[in-house]
Amino acid sequence: MPRIALKVQYSGGKFCGCQYQLGVRTVQEELEKALGTFLRSGGRRVKAVFSGRTDSGVHAAGQVVHFDSDGQDLDLWRLCWGLNGILPEDMSIAAAQVVPPGFHARFSALRRSYVYRILNRPQRSALLRHTHSFIPMPLATESMAKAALELVGQHDFAAFKSTNADTTTTICRVEKAELLNLGEGELEFRIAANHFVYNMVRIVVGTLVEIGLGKRPSTDLVDALTGRQRHLAGPTAPPWGLCLESVEYPEELELFTSDSFQESGPNK
Amino acid sequence: MPRIALKVQYSGGKFCGCQYQLGVRTVQEELEKALGTFLRSGGRRVKAVFSGRTDSGVHAAGQVVHFDSDGQDLDLWRLCWGLNGILPEDMSIAAAQVVPPGFHARFSALRRSYVYRILNRPQRSALLRHTHSFIPMPLATESMAKAALELVGQHDFAAFKSTNADTTTTICRVEKAELLNLGEGELEFRIAANHFVYNMVRIVVGTLVEIGLGKRPSTDLVDALTGRQRHLAGPTAPPWGLCLESVEYPEELELFTSDSFQESGPNK
Repeated sequence: MPRIALKVQYSGGKFCGCQYQLGVRTVQEELEKALGTFLRSGGRRVKAVFSGRTDSGVHAAGQVVHFDSDGQDLDLWRLCWGLNGILPEDMSIAAAQVVPPGFHARFSALRRSYVYRILNRPQRSALLRHTHSFIPMPLATESMAKAALELVGQHDFAAFKSTNADTTTTICRVEKAELLNLGEGELEFRIAANHFVYNMVRIVVGTLVEIGLGKRPSTDLVDALTGRQRHLAGPTAPPWGLCLESVEYPEELELFTSDSFQESGPNK
Repeated sequence: MPRIALKVQYSGGKFCGCQYQLGVRTVQEELEKALGTFLRSGGRRVKAVFSGRTDSGVHAAGQVVHFDSDGQDLDLWRLCWGLNGILPEDMSIAAAQVVPPGFHARFSALRRSYVYRILNRPQRSALLRHTHSFIPMPLATESMAKAALELVGQHDFAAFKSTNADTTTTICRVEKAELLNLGEGELEFRIAANHFVYNMVRIVVGTLVEIGLGKRPSTDLVDALTGRQRHLAGPTAPPWGLCLESVEYPEELELFTSDSFQESGPNK
């Protein structure tokens, strides 16, 4: 009964989020259906456990999922290729790897990395409409970048948690938080932490944008961290700018570390 | 009657190419409709002249178009903003500039630059499906890169012209042709020339890919250039990997050279 980890990518626009919900299209449901078909489970559910949820509309370049193959010894190359044939075009499997039975996509994860993309120029772009949040007003990006650095360290993110959120701890250890100006109006906010509360990245970005617009002082981010009240932080930025880039696990697992042709190529 | 140049972007997937054709959706028709609405032309056609055609499915980040505003003095900021409000979401205007009456989007152009994007790894990607051509078999990218360099210079591209093509000259002066390996299986073929024949970039890429797959020797590119027969070159690569990056004009026009907030921001 080997346990297998998958590196899953999806374009979030046509999903009602990650987690299974009755009556709407979710990443989990599409993946479990594809796994059931590939493993010929005969209608029995093959449970896919995600590293964490992503909201409706949020993308993933490196979501990690585990499942148990129920006694079957799988050729990982055939598994990837087969799932990519079954899955809809807005989902794909980048890699698969056998992991120890104690591995858990959510609880074994050490760090999650997200990127939030902003297009900051007067005119919208047809090419970036699905991946960037468009802000036509000039942003003081240097103030935003400086404020972003204040997030690094262990803080209570209660103010950056959506009010209808679950009950996990709001203490997060942020290891990286930086705003990069890539030129031509393209900004990237990159954040990595051991844990994220619900809607955290989008609320952080919403607050940073208000700082950049001059609607609030750059000290507001720290004030919200210490004040722990949702109303102290800014609005929730739109989902389509956000992408779960990667999830990291203990090094000794060597999860998805080999280069792309090795990790799931036919020579494995 | 000022003449105005527009920098136009579009995501090609849902267009039957650039040039007006009865009964199908084209970039030209959508743009001319939007111009007519904005200029209140009362149903009279506002003719948009393109720097060149792009095929069905091909994208543009920097297509250039000119039109005559028929006596109206236009606020360029309002023009951009207005057109971006009228145009469908898969088209946008990045910038607008008044040009001399003798300017012609096609005939004044000195150089066009295209990029062709390839995803070369065993597994497809949901995130790159609209912008990259997917090639799961390993490619000998070094041979491809070396062969690509042979394109630089003035050559007869008759072998790289689609057979149902128009009758312009097949002599093109290629100023840049390079294959870049961006890592994680992402390849970019970048080519700039004074002129391109119909389907040229896609046939060049189709030939390079066959060289990379070992299906043909790397000398085939040069042999096709000298042999001038379509059958000597490879197949036409799919359109969705191709993007018209930019069109360059004489420097004294200073077309779209200022930074994005200046070029069409409200302070202009």
